[in-house]
Amino acid sequence: MKKIESSSFFIGKQGKGIISFGSGQPDLPPPKEVFSVLSKKQRTFKYGLIQGEERLRDLLAKEYMGADAHNFVICNGASEALDLIFRVLSGVSKRRKVLMPRPYYYSYPFMVKFAGLTPVCTDLKDGRIDLYDFEKKARGCAAVLINSPSNPTGRVEDIETLKQIERITQKLGIYLISDEVYKDLIYERENYVPKGKQVITVNSFSKTFGMCGLRVGYLYSPDKNLVQKTIEMKVHTSMNTNTLAQEMAVAALLAPKSYIEKQKEIWKKRRDFIYAGLKNLELDLWKPEGAFYVFPKMKNPSKVVSDLFYKYKVIVYDGAWFGSPDRIRLSYALDIQKIKEGLRRIGKYLKTNG
Amino acid sequence: MKKIESSSFFIGKQGKGIISFGSGQPDLPPPKEVFSVLSKKQRTFKYGLIQGEERLRDLLAKEYMGADAHNFVICNGASEALDLIFRVLSGVSKRRKVLMPRPYYYSYPFMVKFAGLTPVCTDLKDGRIDLYDFEKKARGCAAVLINSPSNPTGRVEDIETLKQIERITQKLGIYLISDEVYKDLIYERENYVPKGKQVITVNSFSKTFGMCGLRVGYLYSPDKNLVQKTIEMKVHTSMNTNTLAQEMAVAALLAPKSYIEKQKEIWKKRRDFIYAGLKNLELDLWKPEGAFYVFPKMKNPSKVVSDLFYKYKVIVYDGAWFGSPDRIRLSYALDIQKIKEGLRRIGKYLKTNG
Repeated sequence: MKKIESSSFFIGKQGKGIISFGSGQPDLPPPKEVFSVLSKKQRTFKYGLIQGEERLRDLLAKEYMGADAHNFVICNGASEALDLIFRVLSGVSKRRKVLMPRPYYYSYPFMVKFAGLTPVCTDLKDGRIDLYDFEKKARGCAAVLINSPSNPTGRVEDIETLKQIERITQKLGIYLISDEVYKDLIYERENYVPKGKQVITVNSFSKTFGMCGLRVGYLYSPDKNLVQKTIEMKVHTSMNTNTLAQEMAVAALLAPKSYIEKQKEIWKKRRDFIYAGLKNLELDLWKPEGAFYVFPKMKNPSKVVSDLFYKYKVIVYDGAWFGSPDRIRLSYALDIQKIKEGLRRIGKYLKTNG
Repeated sequence: MKKIESSSFFIGKQGKGIISFGSGQPDLPPPKEVFSVLSKKQRTFKYGLIQGEERLRDLLAKEYMGADAHNFVICNGASEALDLIFRVLSGVSKRRKVLMPRPYYYSYPFMVKFAGLTPVCTDLKDGRIDLYDFEKKARGCAAVLINSPSNPTGRVEDIETLKQIERITQKLGIYLISDEVYKDLIYERENYVPKGKQVITVNSFSKTFGMCGLRVGYLYSPDKNLVQKTIEMKVHTSMNTNTLAQEMAVAALLAPKSYIEKQKEIWKKRRDFIYAGLKNLELDLWKPEGAFYVFPKMKNPSKVVSDLFYKYKVIVYDGAWFGSPDRIRLSYALDIQKIKEGLRRIGKYLKTNG
């Protein structure tokens, strides 16, 4: 009989005839009023497995070649998955730097610093990773972090670039963290996702399935030791991810794939509309290839963001928050009528202040 | 017009006529299959406020004298609230130590270390805080962490002790983190919760309302600057807490208070039953005054935990996990029949191995 090392061993342990004086959770149901949002009126909400519900991980495993349920940790969104993995890497790696392309998703440098690591940037060339600079700076890093399709650029890296990044990180023996929360929203070509023992994939149900507020994301890694270390951290820092939201994530995965295809058509129409509209305003921008952001160049973006909000009731984000102080970011997660009205107001503003 | 410093300013910003190209969240509904668990069949799940839903914070504010909704952050359980606050304190405080009574909840030393701080222990005397040792060791700490009623001891500190701890921490100018997740489960007397500018209160819906798996907890602090710093960390590390679970937490707070009273009666019966049962087995233990744990002395607890699980299908926790290597912890969150059967098996084991 093996010594049982910690209480994590017992969390979620069930079986015929087992009597548990273990986990400290009430067996009593919540007030009946709590069920008003649910279709089923009586149930308990016990702790779930820290790693995530098995059904959900089984379904995810089907999407990754050679994976099984043990390769996943279900998290409070991609955010927690990234936060946990940086904290785990900070503990296991002697190297202290993490490389990321700039512009970056605004939380990346914060997360890296919160974990006691140092962010290092490689500047995109015309919205694409510059492999020469990337490889040079990747040396000596604990990990590199990529995000294709990218928030905020809307760019998708070429398949060949992604394969090169696979090779570079494998050769250097460093982790490749691939944030793929927009992988189902690519307009221009089939997707390619990096693979390999050194790859840590982060994804979420937020964008693909419109479930942002429910906070279900996950990390996938072929390295079960790393997965285990992540679970050992999560048991102390947040325990299981909301179990009800995980049931809803299961339902989302089992929904017909046509759901995603229909979404993509809508996003593409919006993309075409806003891109044409901003071009009409003579802004300099990339045509989004994925995700749902446009990232036009702009003089004095800080003032533009403030003016547009206070005087025109239009919200746009300052490129500086993403490491790009000469641009603004617009999310086009809006119906076409609203995009049209928003563009009208921006046009009016630019005319007055241009 | 003030410069807008970061995108956090815009999260959840709504209002008549505002067009938001800001937040990157789909406006499209999730697959209809997702709604099978819900009573309402169509809705969106947008990002919520990082700080938590206003309705929930308003209701909580009524429970804390002088508080308003700005004093709270809703988190993924008390675990995340504690994890965040240690990470925030690690950033703002020059002092690197955190004092906690031993035995402690098993995650405490991990959380403190994960945040780059050092746990320091004051050993309980017969299950109570030794104020002399406590005050001596509190000097030079960034914070002290208490948990009354306590997991794993089931003890409740005297009101006078809690008031002394208030005074000591105020005098020393250090934070008093009070983990009060069992505050509604006290069998022996009225509750007392520490108050003051230096107090950071952590609580959860898990234990009081049987909502462990839904992961809703919160922190309350009179120091709005500290609350703000916590929000600024959470926006990057996990974003909002599951919004649906927050709706359910609102419903729980609005349920008749008799729910809590009825629960307490059930817990008290179980407490009396298991306490008498373990006394009958001639074990040395404290009578629980709160929470739902008994913590009897035991020789070779590691072997007992393993034997009981593998040979008798009974789960108990090793006291060593709580910093007490001469005890085992039993949670009595079980109906009396199961407690009875569990005690029978433990009795049989002790007879054979005693």
